[in-house]
Amino acid sequence: MSAKRFLTRSVEKVSGDTRLTCPDHLAIEEPLEIQVGHGPEEARQWKTVAITMRTPGHDRELAIGFLLGEGLIRSLDQVKAVFSRGPRHGDEGWQHSVRVAIRPGVPLDLDRLQRNFYTTSSCGVCGKTSMEALELGSFPPLPAAEWRVDARTICALPARLREAQAIFDQTGGLHAAGLFTLDGKAIQVREDVGRHNAVDKVIGAEFLTGRSVLANNVLVVSGRASFELMQKALAAGIPMLVAVGAPSSLAVEVADKFSATLIGFTKPSGFNIYSGVQRVRVGEDKVGATDDTKKVFQVSLS
Amino acid sequence: MSAKRFLTRSVEKVSGDTRLTCPDHLAIEEPLEIQVGHGPEEARQWKTVAITMRTPGHDRELAIGFLLGEGLIRSLDQVKAVFSRGPRHGDEGWQHSVRVAIRPGVPLDLDRLQRNFYTTSSCGVCGKTSMEALELGSFPPLPAAEWRVDARTICALPARLREAQAIFDQTGGLHAAGLFTLDGKAIQVREDVGRHNAVDKVIGAEFLTGRSVLANNVLVVSGRASFELMQKALAAGIPMLVAVGAPSSLAVEVADKFSATLIGFTKPSGFNIYSGVQRVRVGEDKVGATDDTKKVFQVSLS
Repeated sequence: MSAKRFLTRSVEKVSGDTRLTCPDHLAIEEPLEIQVGHGPEEARQWKTVAITMRTPGHDRELAIGFLLGEGLIRSLDQVKAVFSRGPRHGDEGWQHSVRVAIRPGVPLDLDRLQRNFYTTSSCGVCGKTSMEALELGSFPPLPAAEWRVDARTICALPARLREAQAIFDQTGGLHAAGLFTLDGKAIQVREDVGRHNAVDKVIGAEFLTGRSVLANNVLVVSGRASFELMQKALAAGIPMLVAVGAPSSLAVEVADKFSATLIGFTKPSGFNIYSGVQRVRVGEDKVGATDDTKKVFQVSLS
Repeated sequence: MSAKRFLTRSVEKVSGDTRLTCPDHLAIEEPLEIQVGHGPEEARQWKTVAITMRTPGHDRELAIGFLLGEGLIRSLDQVKAVFSRGPRHGDEGWQHSVRVAIRPGVPLDLDRLQRNFYTTSSCGVCGKTSMEALELGSFPPLPAAEWRVDARTICALPARLREAQAIFDQTGGLHAAGLFTLDGKAIQVREDVGRHNAVDKVIGAEFLTGRSVLANNVLVVSGRASFELMQKALAAGIPMLVAVGAPSSLAVEVADKFSATLIGFTKPSGFNIYSGVQRVRVGEDKVGATDDTKKVFQVSLS
């Protein structure tokens, strides 16, 4: 079975001074738990060796490829069985856990695994969906939208991020993240081979100045917006994430849940609002006061 | 101090039927260990909470941002000290470990951290460089270069990867990875929100057919080539990694060490060879036999 890799959802497409509700495709991102089983069948021990955020489908291949990459298995004849398990989710009945049973007698150096792992972020715990895991989390609550950022300011953010990169470095080519004021001024800009690192550096830099909740800032990232980046924004109390690339399904789901604003495909001519339209001012709305949130919603639904 | 984020290295630039040795810039990727300390100063316990592959510089900011993102700290007044430590590396004296001491009395839920972590790959262990950690690894040895892939075949690989994606999905927009034959035929192609997942799926799919060493295949990735992806290729015995984007410094270092071929910036008109030029046939070399490796090297040094 070939799993669906995109879901369709309505977004607000902003182009110049207009905003239209249109359908859009989102790449699906969900957690997968990988468990390894060892020992004789009647007394097999299962151990979670990884939880990775992936696009559902080909999950057993993913588990086998992961274990090969870690050097835990060398060939298929070391594997007794590979199977998906757990509650089914979505139209296609995805399961978010895969078990790999190793043949008795095959040496399995789980200590090596523990020693070699490195972690890049947090997500849901095994057997739950990420959304359930997030219920357990305790992000600082975002304030109700007391401000709106002008659409033209948003359109200019990627260019300003690149300008700020150029100040630090002549070359470019790394992932960049920037923290901006509501009128589009860069406060902190960092680059890294890892997009999550660039975001950690930007947020860490601002916290090291003594600030602890960045409720009046916009986070801008040069690439795509994953669950992980949206989560980092929320943990720092940042209500708006602007990505140059596409958001994932789970990033949008989390933004919805916490009433954050998530913007993607940001270009000089426009962008898509995936969640939190109330923090964006488009065209004639510009003259409106903060009280015309209702009107904005009517426009967005027309 | 603003750390250098690129290093300069000579690469083989292939354009049509010519190959020239030119300087090129590589984004620097190195491991950073993040440790958290708790308890009174005289009896402080240090625990490694993450090892992340990052571009050196702003490491203390990265550590603070990471801990905020994980919800382990909420504000700077919970932090007593943040400092880099460990042996110094490179011209700028980078240190690959950061310690964050939490103030006594601040609750620290390390269980939460363990529970919430998910892992995406493996890397070096704390205090060592990745290269030292790799000495401990046991990749299957790559065979000496018994074949060469024609430059025109390599130039066509990204387009073939996209064609194969189109067969599976109408939309595109995800990271893709593909396993190809030496004459450029796609064997396995997978897509995912995570590039490491796409590579795991491709390799896992081929291993599930019963193959265990992919010594006569080329791995193609739609984005950049990180240490992690090079490592996955080597673990599966794949001698050649072709990336559409840029490689990181550590990916090149690992390719050098294991005599693998690493190619980046692959376009219809040409590409860069960062390591393992002996597996690539350019222009007039095309008529040569396998024994003209020396000639290739002479050309590359002219």
